[in-house]
Amino acid sequence: MPVNLRPPDPREIRSVDGVELGFAMAGIKRPGRRDVMLVTIREGSSVAAVFTQNSFAAAPVQVCRRHLAGGLPVRALIINAGNANCGTGQAGIDAALKTCAAVAELTGCVSSQVLPFSTGVILEPLPLDRLLASLPECSATLKADHWCEAASAIMTTDTVAKAFSTTVAIDGSELVVTGIAKGVGMLQPNMATMLAFVATNARIEPQLLSRMIKGIANSSFNRVTVDGDTSTNDSFVLIATGAASSHLIDSEQHPHYGELEAAIGRVAKLLAQAIARDGEGATKFITVVVRQAGDEAEAVRVAKAIAHSPLVKTAFFASDPNLGRLLMAIGNAGIANLDVTHVEITLGDVQVIAKGERAKSYREEDGARVMREAEITIGVDLGRGDASATVWTCDFSYDYVKINAEYRT
Amino acid sequence: MPVNLRPPDPREIRSVDGVELGFAMAGIKRPGRRDVMLVTIREGSSVAAVFTQNSFAAAPVQVCRRHLAGGLPVRALIINAGNANCGTGQAGIDAALKTCAAVAELTGCVSSQVLPFSTGVILEPLPLDRLLASLPECSATLKADHWCEAASAIMTTDTVAKAFSTTVAIDGSELVVTGIAKGVGMLQPNMATMLAFVATNARIEPQLLSRMIKGIANSSFNRVTVDGDTSTNDSFVLIATGAASSHLIDSEQHPHYGELEAAIGRVAKLLAQAIARDGEGATKFITVVVRQAGDEAEAVRVAKAIAHSPLVKTAFFASDPNLGRLLMAIGNAGIANLDVTHVEITLGDVQVIAKGERAKSYREEDGARVMREAEITIGVDLGRGDASATVWTCDFSYDYVKINAEYRT
Repeated sequence: MPVNLRPPDPREIRSVDGVELGFAMAGIKRPGRRDVMLVTIREGSSVAAVFTQNSFAAAPVQVCRRHLAGGLPVRALIINAGNANCGTGQAGIDAALKTCAAVAELTGCVSSQVLPFSTGVILEPLPLDRLLASLPECSATLKADHWCEAASAIMTTDTVAKAFSTTVAIDGSELVVTGIAKGVGMLQPNMATMLAFVATNARIEPQLLSRMIKGIANSSFNRVTVDGDTSTNDSFVLIATGAASSHLIDSEQHPHYGELEAAIGRVAKLLAQAIARDGEGATKFITVVVRQAGDEAEAVRVAKAIAHSPLVKTAFFASDPNLGRLLMAIGNAGIANLDVTHVEITLGDVQVIAKGERAKSYREEDGARVMREAEITIGVDLGRGDASATVWTCDFSYDYVKINAEYRT
Repeated sequence: MPVNLRPPDPREIRSVDGVELGFAMAGIKRPGRRDVMLVTIREGSSVAAVFTQNSFAAAPVQVCRRHLAGGLPVRALIINAGNANCGTGQAGIDAALKTCAAVAELTGCVSSQVLPFSTGVILEPLPLDRLLASLPECSATLKADHWCEAASAIMTTDTVAKAFSTTVAIDGSELVVTGIAKGVGMLQPNMATMLAFVATNARIEPQLLSRMIKGIANSSFNRVTVDGDTSTNDSFVLIATGAASSHLIDSEQHPHYGELEAAIGRVAKLLAQAIARDGEGATKFITVVVRQAGDEAEAVRVAKAIAHSPLVKTAFFASDPNLGRLLMAIGNAGIANLDVTHVEITLGDVQVIAKGERAKSYREEDGARVMREAEITIGVDLGRGDASATVWTCDFSYDYVKINAEYRT
């Protein structure tokens, strides 16, 4: 059950001039559902991407890196759900390359201008024939307003499609930012989440876009965790078609850079939060805010130590204010010379820990009241400095075990 | 359901001359169960201990460190289950000190010769009055052959008491090693497990014992994980009473050092494995062996990346050979420059991965056959060097969630 997350309303999801999306039912894992998505990108667009840091990067991730290194502008993305094409060796690489070649032929570009993406079960051969056979249908359904359909075509254990739009008016042009993503297990993105695609009609210089995507990934997808497991297929792509404006944004000093980055960051954060809201088996959406850290890395480490702890997550599932587990998790974050007598913890509006121990004002029924809510914020002050970080996660329920024990059946 | 683990047979658990154990029902968490244990240690014994690396070390751990630093020989241990006395500030320290003082008076030693230990819920005040009131009963029940009763008095979510003995004949004396431990959640010991007490009647020089306990902890309790959460109360104590022999073992070059260390290590490993066999909700006992690593730390990191992954653990619970998750976990171990084409993986006697991809000989039904067994060994060859490490863990079931969601009810 996703936490306060509804399917996107197609009327609220804006098209991005220069981007079209098509889809098909290829029967990759099982028949009868949309599981392939094609994205075409108009000439003159800038495209940037970040990928998983997992050593076993999947074949499509390896091909993406190779194609981006080639330096030709990206013109198409091809994505399948139901099979990760990972642990598949040279045959997997060949399958990804053949898919790119077929897409290139269909869309009128060269093979290295196509980026392939896969999500699903690891270690199974990609059913290449079925994937190739679905491409004409993908091409025939290409349309600018197919973002919601595309979002549902890339779902695996997601229960709700994830799409968000925002707009910002700059110099008389309306700039649109629209993005989609899928989660929702094997999920502690390290550079980017499982699969996320965000596009804007702004015009942004390619190298600037590459720098921008890293910053945005770090404050959105890299700040969400469901189970602490980093996928082999994480990919986050940012497209700037430039269709809306002739003003090229070419530096961080550009008067509109900040506004645009904020708009893209907003969509990325909504997508990242949506992934935690729909985390496998989630019944609670949990925001962990760590303040007064020595530096940002330390703040993230403490926040993730809390967000990853199975004991913290099961207590939240039970709505049980067994909050000593928060101390345990902070104590395990590996912060050198942490003076625990400076640590303060709040749960919603309730102070739980003062000076490293149970606050005198704390009453169990106040903790229990907050724990019963569907959205809960844990606040931690470390008393060491002025850095902070926010991480989003969900609780840990029977259904997480059920979903992952039965994933392939 | 513990995996191939029966309650200890009292006839197989040997007494250790110089150590007596008593117990009582103090009603720390709830009435009607043994929850306090007292251990007395004869004069002239050597005692060494290692403790949790969690920054929020519990009050009893802090008092243990202080008492050991004082340098007087340890003469008694006092242990309670049901309350961890952690996050309890100065009041918690005072409660631990008062307990030590009462034990000292009862057993005829000074307060700093007593080490206190607690296990149970964090952040609740220790019910000191009930604990103190139980001490006379603990004292009245002191007996050398009470190891099994003591093992059950320190249980929390354990379903089976854990006690093992071994003997080794040296120079005509029979040396005995007997140990007890409790687990079984918040369990990734870092220096030592939740609570483990091992005693021998051998005579060992105290500083040598201190060095020995670190090596033994590293290859036993520090190699077991249930949920990756390191407790605030981990403690492992090793007692050498010297009652059996006048030969002082005073260096690693001593002709019998190796034999004795092996015997103590054997008991420690059996206890560590017993904790994984009885891990919260466990239905499978899993041994992860990593070989051909660049160094031992790297081997441990890869083994723990596998042993901690919720996705790997739920697949084992389901007996589903979804073995791509092993690749994912290895890829997340943070090994710099891992050449994945050198990685080989076996599951029991079945080769799953060869040269970093699905082995040509691998058939799903072979993987499924091994997955159905209750004890499974995962073998990983990294192809980087000649270091190796073994880690023990269990699977991740509905019951882990149930136990931890309902822990305080």
